[in-house]
Amino acid sequence: MISVVLIGAGNVATHLFKAFSLSNQASVNQWYSRTLKSIEAYKTQVEITDNLSQLKDADVYIIAVSDDAISELSSKLPFEDRLVVHTSGSVGIYDLDKKLKRGVFYPLQTFTKGADVDFSTVPICIETIKKTDYHILKQLGQAIGSKTHRVNSDQRSALHLAAVFVNNFTNQLYRVAHEITESKGAEFDILKPLILETANKVQDLSPYVAQTGPAKRNDKKTIKKHLKSLDSEHHRTIYELLTTSIKKTHGTSTGSATKRSITKNN
Amino acid sequence: MISVVLIGAGNVATHLFKAFSLSNQASVNQWYSRTLKSIEAYKTQVEITDNLSQLKDADVYIIAVSDDAISELSSKLPFEDRLVVHTSGSVGIYDLDKKLKRGVFYPLQTFTKGADVDFSTVPICIETIKKTDYHILKQLGQAIGSKTHRVNSDQRSALHLAAVFVNNFTNQLYRVAHEITESKGAEFDILKPLILETANKVQDLSPYVAQTGPAKRNDKKTIKKHLKSLDSEHHRTIYELLTTSIKKTHGTSTGSATKRSITKNN
Ligand SMILES: NC(=O)c1ccc[n+]([C@@H]2O[C@H](COP(=O)([O-])OP(=O)(O)OC[C@H]3O[C@@H](n4cnc5c(N)ncnc54)[C@H](OP(=O)(O)O)[C@@H]3O)[C@@H](O)[C@H]2O)c1
Ligand SMILES: NC(=O)c1ccc[n+]([C@@H]2O[C@H](COP(=O)([O-])OP(=O)(O)OC[C@H]3O[C@@H](n4cnc5c(N)ncnc54)[C@H](OP(=O)(O)O)[C@@H]3O)[C@@H](O)[C@H]2O)c1
Repeated sequence: MISVVLIGAGNVATHLFKAFSLSNQASVNQWYSRTLKSIEAYKTQVEITDNLSQLKDADVYIIAVSDDAISELSSKLPFEDRLVVHTSGSVGIYDLDKKLKRGVFYPLQTFTKGADVDFSTVPICIETIKKTDYHILKQLGQAIGSKTHRVNSDQRSALHLAAVFVNNFTNQLYRVAHEITESKGAEFDILKPLILETANKVQDLSPYVAQTGPAKRNDKKTIKKHLKSLDSEHHRTIYELLTTSIKKTHGTSTGSATKRSITKNN
Repeated sequence: MISVVLIGAGNVATHLFKAFSLSNQASVNQWYSRTLKSIEAYKTQVEITDNLSQLKDADVYIIAVSDDAISELSSKLPFEDRLVVHTSGSVGIYDLDKKLKRGVFYPLQTFTKGADVDFSTVPICIETIKKTDYHILKQLGQAIGSKTHRVNSDQRSALHLAAVFVNNFTNQLYRVAHEITESKGAEFDILKPLILETANKVQDLSPYVAQTGPAKRNDKKTIKKHLKSLDSEHHRTIYELLTTSIKKTHGTSTGSATKRSITKNN
């Protein structure tokens, strides 16, 4: 049984608390929040505190607070040499105070308050300085049903950045699609199965192989028609850039005849 | 029972043939392909032909050939006044020969040869000139388990264009994410659950409400860090444009303090 002290009371901390509570390989000894009110509802299930000097012993301390607050909070911890991790994709491991055994326990998923989270669909990226610490964190991830992945700092940064593309930017493309359909009185809902299928497809195929459409085919007539029918200058800019990007990837831009013939049959 | 003659032997025609074969409310009388070899494997299940002058009677003729070939093919049909539809999102209904009863039966989904298609996840957009034709096509869609949607030409164009954003462009963002992770030796696979969850989220929430991340929060520090760590100029351009787009949508760009305060709590 791995014992945990949770620090913070936002989305991530709350979802982790629920997951640890359901696990019989991990338990939360104590939950800290500077605003006690945020966790008061849980006080029958776990000891709560808003006082850092009263933190109890635990195998792992998880700091799940806003990125900007992690470093300072870690330096205020009233102990040394214990395993303390943060849950951020972008904060460095060395931003944690050096008096501690430092680690990162980064759940690569998007969390929303309210909605339940099934941690078996949440990959956890683990970074540690010492190998023994890695093994504890790996067990902790497995205790809530997650797949864990050992990463170094560069890899974690790359994953965090790539997550912005597949999550925030993709969602913005959905938004643009919503604007386009709405402007013509068409239902955005009709696109939902295609949105799902597009995401499903790359579970098995690489995005390279999964690509289709006018840009990949270099179908100039359709591209021109699309650009003409886009009312918003901003939408046109996005259309042009991503069309160029697809052509770049698939060697269908003018002047790269060699590349074109290589990738034609994919 | 609605009788169908299929014209064309590509992805869409093949998937439709399989779906009609499983239905007891529709049947394929005959299948035409200019290249007979493409459909020879089906000749024990359906009458096949490569001769337009031998087309049989049917309630609906479905032209599922390359966009560019639809118009000419329709004018070569050796009959008048029968219901003939194409399956394209972008070709006009009036591109079909005017001697025919014209319609569009546009499956808004991405089809891949090989992979099976469950038509209950394929919305079909129907456009007709006459209402009676609409009812036949609606029944035909329902016969293969699809949800049907009546659309006009503008709405169909908008949906087709929006589909490029949620399918081709989204897939290209997955590709960029693949390039980013690969360049740092991180596994693209770790992003797959997030890709699915991002698509899942907008099944219930609007993309506007579902948005999160540094651009939405206008977290300048993280944005700067991300831009700095992107090695590719091209990736940086995409990052900047989509960040600007999110800021535009959520009123977090500088100089729009009013909008910002309105949308802050979403
Ligand atoms: N949300 C996600 O989808 C997600 C995914 C992966 C990783 N992460 C990472 O997980 C961490 C937490 O994110 P979150 O989404 O759970 O954040 P959140 O919902 O915004 O909650 C932030 C928490 O941090 C606390 N906090 C902020 N400043 C503090 C300070 N100076 N001292 C003590 N507590 C402070 C807040 O307390 P008050 O309520 O008192 O302000 C709140 O409990 C971040 O590092 C984030 O990058 C988030
Ligand atoms: N694929 C999708 O995801 C999708 C989704 C929705 C709608 N659509 C639409 O469905 C239609 C068919 O697309 P598809 O993906 O099935 O195409 P495809 O797989 O590329 O197949 C095209 C078919 O058209 C035939 N063809 C081309 N030119 C012809 C001509 N001049 N005369 C007779 N036959 C000709 C081809 O025959 P040969 O083999 O003899 O060349 C082939 O059988 C298009 O309008 C497309 O816009 C496609």
